[in-house]
Amino acid sequence: MTADVSYDPRTGGVNGEVPITPEAEVDAIVAAAAACATEVAAVPPTERARWSGAIADALEAARDELVDLADSETALGRKRLEGEVGRTAGQLRFYADVAVEGSYLGATIDHAAGANPALVRVNVPRGPVAVFGASNFPFAFSVLGNDTASALAAGCPVVVKGHPAHPLLSRRLGALVTEALRDAGAPEGVFGIVHGFDAGVRLVEAPQITAVAFTGSQRAGMALRDAAEKRDVPIPVFAEMGTVNPVVVTAAAAQARLSEIASGFVGSFTLGTGQFCTKPGLMLAPRGSGAAEAVAEALREASPQGWSLTQGIAEAASTGVRELVDAGAEVVAQVDGPDAGWSVASTVLSVPLDALEPGSRLLEECFGPVALVAEYDDGEALARTVGALQGTLAAAIMAEGDEDPDLPGTLAQLTTKAGRVTVGDFPTGVSYTWAQHHGGPWPATSDPTATSVGAAALTRFTRPVTYQSVPDPALPAPVRDDNPWGIPRRVDGRLVLP
Amino acid sequence: MTADVSYDPRTGGVNGEVPITPEAEVDAIVAAAAACATEVAAVPPTERARWSGAIADALEAARDELVDLADSETALGRKRLEGEVGRTAGQLRFYADVAVEGSYLGATIDHAAGANPALVRVNVPRGPVAVFGASNFPFAFSVLGNDTASALAAGCPVVVKGHPAHPLLSRRLGALVTEALRDAGAPEGVFGIVHGFDAGVRLVEAPQITAVAFTGSQRAGMALRDAAEKRDVPIPVFAEMGTVNPVVVTAAAAQARLSEIASGFVGSFTLGTGQFCTKPGLMLAPRGSGAAEAVAEALREASPQGWSLTQGIAEAASTGVRELVDAGAEVVAQVDGPDAGWSVASTVLSVPLDALEPGSRLLEECFGPVALVAEYDDGEALARTVGALQGTLAAAIMAEGDEDPDLPGTLAQLTTKAGRVTVGDFPTGVSYTWAQHHGGPWPATSDPTATSVGAAALTRFTRPVTYQSVPDPALPAPVRDDNPWGIPRRVDGRLVLP
Repeated sequence: MTADVSYDPRTGGVNGEVPITPEAEVDAIVAAAAACATEVAAVPPTERARWSGAIADALEAARDELVDLADSETALGRKRLEGEVGRTAGQLRFYADVAVEGSYLGATIDHAAGANPALVRVNVPRGPVAVFGASNFPFAFSVLGNDTASALAAGCPVVVKGHPAHPLLSRRLGALVTEALRDAGAPEGVFGIVHGFDAGVRLVEAPQITAVAFTGSQRAGMALRDAAEKRDVPIPVFAEMGTVNPVVVTAAAAQARLSEIASGFVGSFTLGTGQFCTKPGLMLAPRGSGAAEAVAEALREASPQGWSLTQGIAEAASTGVRELVDAGAEVVAQVDGPDAGWSVASTVLSVPLDALEPGSRLLEECFGPVALVAEYDDGEALARTVGALQGTLAAAIMAEGDEDPDLPGTLAQLTTKAGRVTVGDFPTGVSYTWAQHHGGPWPATSDPTATSVGAAALTRFTRPVTYQSVPDPALPAPVRDDNPWGIPRRVDGRLVLP
Repeated sequence: MTADVSYDPRTGGVNGEVPITPEAEVDAIVAAAAACATEVAAVPPTERARWSGAIADALEAARDELVDLADSETALGRKRLEGEVGRTAGQLRFYADVAVEGSYLGATIDHAAGANPALVRVNVPRGPVAVFGASNFPFAFSVLGNDTASALAAGCPVVVKGHPAHPLLSRRLGALVTEALRDAGAPEGVFGIVHGFDAGVRLVEAPQITAVAFTGSQRAGMALRDAAEKRDVPIPVFAEMGTVNPVVVTAAAAQARLSEIASGFVGSFTLGTGQFCTKPGLMLAPRGSGAAEAVAEALREASPQGWSLTQGIAEAASTGVRELVDAGAEVVAQVDGPDAGWSVASTVLSVPLDALEPGSRLLEECFGPVALVAEYDDGEALARTVGALQGTLAAAIMAEGDEDPDLPGTLAQLTTKAGRVTVGDFPTGVSYTWAQHHGGPWPATSDPTATSVGAAALTRFTRPVTYQSVPDPALPAPVRDDNPWGIPRRVDGRLVLP
């Protein structure tokens, strides 16, 4: 392969192509990132915030052009993509603000006391980070997405591997950010982009790369993780992978508002043609509630129409439905997609609860507008099934008011399996705020403490260093006596606000 | 093997033995830990602090008996061991205090705003933790060491694998803590101990175990890590492994006080018969300073005498010296150990700087009272050598005052390689305070963000969960509106002190 080819999902036609990056160029880009890492690390977060702001401004200024390009490669529609550009600019500014606030530095100062020497501890940037974007959010989880924005905010140079599902947009965004950073006075090398599978492998193997951030399938995430483990110096791969994101309907909720819940569930699992890592792929509803039929009816009524991002995703969704049937599920409703391009049918299947056993295909993600419905007899059966689930990014409970007797127990169970548990809300949306966690127990993420969205996203890209008996002028700014960056710190065990 | 045999290092004689734990018993202990995990997680840190305090009190009350037993198995001497008992009790109380302070919970509250739903984020205990203690600190890094104390403080049940270098003490400590916890009203299962290699493997493979903490050799740490990766659900192994811990002497310091530095270096690398993970194994001094001869003279003058903890360690230290010679080093001074038991010679070797190349045996730990000395020509040569070093737990700079021109550059270089950098202090001592970091870049630790000493040790045993639109009464205590635990929290992006 010599190029990433860009296709129009609506027709299957070719938009153009982007040549893959030759090895020597990958090496030069990585070397440039490594060469400026110390300089970038020493820059105050306020200055890096200026860089991120410049990128965000450039992104918004080019919105219409970028949305056209993105829509031609993803078929996600202008409205959704316009919103995503705004979100991506917002993310860049948010992570920069988080860095400026400074708590992510974990600045801690213990003055010498008795036999204990003076110690200060601060999180320092790891160094150059490789970012593998996702297909399904060409702005918000790709070249300029949460990973790039949080790594830059944390003081790490970034080398992006452009996604082959939107190579033209990736290249255009790469040029845009390079220019914006140059204009803002950032050092050469702080951002780079490569294209092509082999270039991605070379990135992960490059000795100067210190961490990898990835959003995508379990298969690809695990392959990157294996490659990173085989290095002379293994590095972390923060892989956020697809999961089933179960929705539990309590008895009271099913009785009070099943059809409303069914409509919401359909809206959630067919949003973006089911191409969300937080897509709810499984509803667990009370026995006899008729949940499967209610969801089937809601699906037929909504009749969602959309395209898969790639031919491979469209084919995998169809294959996935067949695999689910082979594993014991039964199709109860199917709505065909558009007549042309990478069309995909939206599908609801019902499945007996006892088929949901550990290791079953039924408990793995089927990426696309596909969901299962199962009915449970009682709390004990529900608990057993939740126990069988894999770790998941999110889980939702549809309960009936705060007094629903099934709420506390279900919440406690789902918390053991999910990185985020919602009550009343479907899991699809992921806001970028301080308290967000977008990650979860294995295999949702390779490290269940890591989040790719929210303020804590920065900490993936730092490591702590303790300085013992080091003279004050030789210390990094965040832990110098006079607190030049004006950040919250822990001094002799007490949190001190600036 | 049916038992861990206890030997007296001073004579090689047998003290007694502890039967290995049968599989069924290991399983029962793990099951008991899992059965109480939810209960332990919900207990307020103040209550868990009472448990830890009860253990600390019991430890101090039994000090004389425990020290006698430990000395018979380790030959570390009563004085050192008495200090270690006090330290271990102090650690138990410190980690409990850190938990009560509550920042480790990372409690974060974002109220609903615009399109963003209400989110709260809090670190929850991972669940049962397996702790593999170290041979070299029979109290402070073993059954009741930093790992056990921080895991309990974080709300996780603990199952310890007793160390075969001090099996009788391990068993005695296991009984002591079990009794103390029972008297304090802690649930059955919150602490367990197993003995024997196979029991340790079974622990790591047990599906209910959620994390492993380990202190010891790279070989053993990597073996545990591989086993943990092969599970259906991989779990983290927080392995803190031995490293070289280089000491750099600046030109000014060498000129001003070389013999003082040489004496300090000898004291540090022969402390505890060289059996510290923070033992400085390499001195880098200016060309022509005569550092190797100065260290040799200091060694002959100090004439340290001690035993290795085990026959294996004694043999590995002798073999290690031969390997260093084969790799290009030359013995410049050697002081024989005692005439009986697991005696080991204290050894200083000199080595040409250019032999210190990546991959060389010279850059790997030699556990025991053994150290290398090399001389560098200039800052560039020093930088190249530091660049070749493996990641390390600690590194030290011997500089001459705050104005030493070589201090800033050397500090910046060593920071890229070490989890802790000291100026003026030798690296051996590791205080347990808020700002401590006892970890470092690969291969010092399997995860360079993890520390086994200091307040941040707790975070290894938690994972974050975000609750979205969850009614306040259903939330965990740390993130309920009324802040029942009185902890620092971040509310709508602002840190709020209690």
